Amino acid sequence: MKQESLNGTHHNGSAPHDRLSTTPFPASRKVYVEGSHAGVRVPMREISLTSPPSPHAPQGQSPEPASETGPSSITVYDTSGVYTDPAISIDIRQGLAPVRQGWIAAREDSEELDGSSSDYGRFRAADRSLADIRFAHLRRPRRALAGRNVSQMHYARKGIVTPEMEYIAIRENQAREQLREQAEANGNGNGLSAVAHQHPGNAWGASIPQTITPEFVRDEVARGRAIIPANINHPELEPMIIGRNFLVKINANIGNSAVASSIDEEVEKMIWAIRWGSDTVMDLSTGKNIHETREWILRNAPVPIGTVPIYQALEKVDGKAEELTWEIYRDTLIEQAEQGVDYFTIHAGVLLRYVPLTAKRLTGIVSRGGSILAKWCLAHHQENFLYTHFEEICEIMQAYDVSFSLGDGLRPGSIADANDEAQFGELETLGELTKIAWQHDVQTMIEGPGHVPMHLIQANMEKQIAACHEAPFYTLGPLTTDIAPGYDHITSGIGAAMIGWFGCAMLCYVTPKEHLGLPDREDVKAGVIAYKIAAHAADLAKGHPGAQARDNALSQARFEFRWEDQFHLSLDPETAQQFHDETLPAEGAKVAHFCSMCGPHFCSMKITQDVRDYAERKDMDEQAALEAGLQEKAEEFRQGGSELYRQAR
Amino acid sequence: MKQESLNGTHHNGSAPHDRLSTTPFPASRKVYVEGSHAGVRVPMREISLTSPPSPHAPQGQSPEPASETGPSSITVYDTSGVYTDPAISIDIRQGLAPVRQGWIAAREDSEELDGSSSDYGRFRAADRSLADIRFAHLRRPRRALAGRNVSQMHYARKGIVTPEMEYIAIRENQAREQLREQAEANGNGNGLSAVAHQHPGNAWGASIPQTITPEFVRDEVARGRAIIPANINHPELEPMIIGRNFLVKINANIGNSAVASSIDEEVEKMIWAIRWGSDTVMDLSTGKNIHETREWILRNAPVPIGTVPIYQALEKVDGKAEELTWEIYRDTLIEQAEQGVDYFTIHAGVLLRYVPLTAKRLTGIVSRGGSILAKWCLAHHQENFLYTHFEEICEIMQAYDVSFSLGDGLRPGSIADANDEAQFGELETLGELTKIAWQHDVQTMIEGPGHVPMHLIQANMEKQIAACHEAPFYTLGPLTTDIAPGYDHITSGIGAAMIGWFGCAMLCYVTPKEHLGLPDREDVKAGVIAYKIAAHAADLAKGHPGAQARDNALSQARFEFRWEDQFHLSLDPETAQQFHDETLPAEGAKVAHFCSMCGPHFCSMKITQDVRDYAERKDMDEQAALEAGLQEKAEEFRQGGSELYRQAR
Repeated sequence: MKQESLNGTHHNGSAPHDRLSTTPFPASRKVYVEGSHAGVRVPMREISLTSPPSPHAPQGQSPEPASETGPSSITVYDTSGVYTDPAISIDIRQGLAPVRQGWIAAREDSEELDGSSSDYGRFRAADRSLADIRFAHLRRPRRALAGRNVSQMHYARKGIVTPEMEYIAIRENQAREQLREQAEANGNGNGLSAVAHQHPGNAWGASIPQTITPEFVRDEVARGRAIIPANINHPELEPMIIGRNFLVKINANIGNSAVASSIDEEVEKMIWAIRWGSDTVMDLSTGKNIHETREWILRNAPVPIGTVPIYQALEKVDGKAEELTWEIYRDTLIEQAEQGVDYFTIHAGVLLRYVPLTAKRLTGIVSRGGSILAKWCLAHHQENFLYTHFEEICEIMQAYDVSFSLGDGLRPGSIADANDEAQFGELETLGELTKIAWQHDVQTMIEGPGHVPMHLIQANMEKQIAACHEAPFYTLGPLTTDIAPGYDHITSGIGAAMIGWFGCAMLCYVTPKEHLGLPDREDVKAGVIAYKIAAHAADLAKGHPGAQARDNALSQARFEFRWEDQFHLSLDPETAQQFHDETLPAEGAKVAHFCSMCGPHFCSMKITQDVRDYAERKDMDEQAALEAGLQEKAEEFRQGGSELYRQAR
Repeated sequence: MKQESLNGTHHNGSAPHDRLSTTPFPASRKVYVEGSHAGVRVPMREISLTSPPSPHAPQGQSPEPASETGPSSITVYDTSGVYTDPAISIDIRQGLAPVRQGWIAAREDSEELDGSSSDYGRFRAADRSLADIRFAHLRRPRRALAGRNVSQMHYARKGIVTPEMEYIAIRENQAREQLREQAEANGNGNGLSAVAHQHPGNAWGASIPQTITPEFVRDEVARGRAIIPANINHPELEPMIIGRNFLVKINANIGNSAVASSIDEEVEKMIWAIRWGSDTVMDLSTGKNIHETREWILRNAPVPIGTVPIYQALEKVDGKAEELTWEIYRDTLIEQAEQGVDYFTIHAGVLLRYVPLTAKRLTGIVSRGGSILAKWCLAHHQENFLYTHFEEICEIMQAYDVSFSLGDGLRPGSIADANDEAQFGELETLGELTKIAWQHDVQTMIEGPGHVPMHLIQANMEKQIAACHEAPFYTLGPLTTDIAPGYDHITSGIGAAMIGWFGCAMLCYVTPKEHLGLPDREDVKAGVIAYKIAAHAADLAKGHPGAQARDNALSQARFEFRWEDQFHLSLDPETAQQFHDETLPAEGAKVAHFCSMCGPHFCSMKITQDVRDYAERKDMDEQAALEAGLQEKAEEFRQGGSELYRQAR
């Protein structure tokens, strides 16, 4: 831990804020859509276009010229928080504004505590040597009043539409509005074509409504088909939802380890990950000062933060799995819940009887949490204490609204081990635990593999839906081959896109460094972008209403040679522009009606435009142009002499 | 064109060969497997492993310790040619040895010509100003004797197993042998598990045999379900096959344009592309000196070379599509066939009546060839001359054994345009043309999209198989979303893997520069690796016998912390090692039983090993360890004092 880095003396010589990624995206501005509940202001990113869509496409036989319809824009889902809002001044030492605080307090079902109810939390708070690295403006932790349940599922089941639910409805609905406007602007064109497409092979059925209402959000949460990870101790959160009838979400993992990285690096990694589109972030720190690192991340995170509490519990027993106890683990849950962690990965399905099934495997147990618990089970010859204490865990979860992410400790670690009895045995147990969690109104999602060849992916989704009663699925990849270390964002992006299509609600990213080392900034970005691609490809394939709006806008810009608009509409405008400029760096090239692949004579889009323009000049549609015949062109050719070969230019 | 670069004065100051990528892969050596036909020596890459697989995995309850079984190796399919064989001295001015020359001559059905039969070929040959850039050791072109047909399909249908077919059987079969050995070494383990997996959703049925025989190769070629692109004027070729009952292949596009790049850069790009695994290379040059560039590429290419002859034909009429004539085009086919091009993309399915269907599209016509021909059709109000002259084209193809790659000139250029009537109309026509080609015994594959959302991919494959009578499908991607320019190797890698699984025989790569600029060296590599991943993931999902051998070997090395073996077995050893070394650069780390992600206490694979080792020390299997109970461990824990918290280290 580089303590000085939090006190202004930065290891690269610059002030901390210089390293934060707070530049707005090009041609973009942050807009907020207000809801009916007080304080509901949903952030979105509005991308302005240099010119409106041409009347030509799609099917646009609209009579008015393009210039009369005025400039256009497209609004996209925005995970980046206020970091991309130049109107907000950022100070990570202060943390973000607690936008949910009023909503939480108004429910009058929780109370502020004097300090942490966790032994370890108090132990760290009392340690003066940590003063320099501790987050300075800690709020008092909040907990449900005795006998109360503060989970969004609890409210949903009582029929209450919370401000969080309204927020999410507005947020999820934006893309739909966009596509509707696009379709209207173009006449009844193919803007909506994705919706009309058939969707073979979905495990989930077509239950996505045309318009997301707050009531729909409530209903999905009530029936357990979606979760809103939103700890009452994380009021800085911009609410989001994870469920297969909503946009597919992605998660990025960050976290220091014993080997490398520091607190402010982790905060910046979080900001960086959400800038590129990560919907949640898991803090998987395993090194020193985990408690303080987590505090800094939470106070600056507008997205849900997940953790794997067993990692920290293991640190507390110096890495000796057999020394873990329920008491240490329980205290860790409370410590983290009172800091504001929104979901916990809990490997409660690693049962003693499943462990021997992994001995037949090529790669045994590859989940860290799974292997820790397997070792504990074997060492004590007792059942997994997370399983035996599951109801007590539920009581903790409901007191803070922490969501379960039931861990797949026995997920396959190689193609050879996919879909085996250990994996599916654990899945059945996770289904049983889901029912228990729901008895406590605790929100629950299920973690999944891992390494799975393409033809076995759909079975994973179908079994999960059946075994876990439609609780949202949250998978790591899966990797579709093991032969490309260094490129596992791609091997797994393939599997992630497919399982997202089949109904997976959230995709945990994999970076190029997977299996090789700790991801740096560029790896985090590469992983997030690959997974945004996978998630968006899945949304398209699911026929999610509105998913196609951005594709259409970008494709139309491409067709009309609006280079700047193509850059601005892309997932990574900087890279798109940089790649373009490498070949044709001149500013003028960005409006040129040809591009660097083909040169002026060859560009097919240019030729298609020529065909259309010719028809227009002749005041005829393409069909008429055809029918009239183009004798004058044939004439020109003959007059030109029809020389077969001329000296090469 | 930088002429000097071919004459030793290199623009980066080094001799040309210094830039060639001829270093063998680490821990790899080139081995050759001999066939029964004279001259059949099939190159493969043997990767040596630092230690044999452990008896633990998979299911290996073999009694002897690892050290007694001796070192092990794995052999993989090798596209890189003699460039990675240090025993061969490389001189691109001389070109490669003509390994097929004897086979071709022995068939006695072709003759050497005095010079090119193409007007343009003679025109270029006579141009003295080109002497400096012309390949110096040109062979005389060869053509079928009058009335003879030299296509592999022709031989196949006559029941002849050519040396090319035997070569391919050995080459394709290697992976199967590998997996068989792996399974035997490990007892009846899960090495063969992929074969036993079910394969839902395949369009192609399970017709892959357990062993590829030369007779099977012949039969697949005879029925048109596979092609062997192998022009008799390309004797340097190491024969390969494209068909859905064989390994999925990939193609890389290279080619200079009016804007950038030079001849030797293109040769090096070809060598670079095949180094990373490209099975064929298309030369899409559109700039000056296309003829000479192609000659250099062919004389140095051990893989089939494809072209799109309409590009060069258009150059000959100064880029004016309406000035194209059958005569110019025909002469271009002969020019290129006599140089040795192995397959031609020919857009003969772009019919006049389909062109107006594209007017409704968001992005019109995006195939360069398609748009050129559409323009020609409209300008002349005549049917596409490639369609009307198709039988004459067949006669040229059969005289050199050039394979058709029937171009999809009307493929969709955006998600919005996928699977529309223009695309599928053209596909029907390509099916009709396939039948005509087969009447001439001309080998034929069919090109496909393009841009297709995931849920519409399978329909593409099924329609192609039905409409084109099982001729091999060769697709560009498809891209599964349009919103990520700069990352289209990933957007399309997803679609490529899926369509490969569904039965596509060859995947045309897409680089990160797609839609933005001309790919450089690193882009070519990124595209090839992404597509090797897609092709291999498809082979796994198809249950291709043997595809899993490399995955298993790498996974086992991972499980046993054999870092060097992991690097050596990966698609890109350099990148894997570099990524690993960034976090843990010490040489010692590569044999350490932990890695940089987790640190020593956390690595799940380490813990799993500990569990197994413990059981082994106690002379019991894991099940017995469980049953015996581990009281001593519980004792240790209690004796340790069970302190809940100690001062953080």
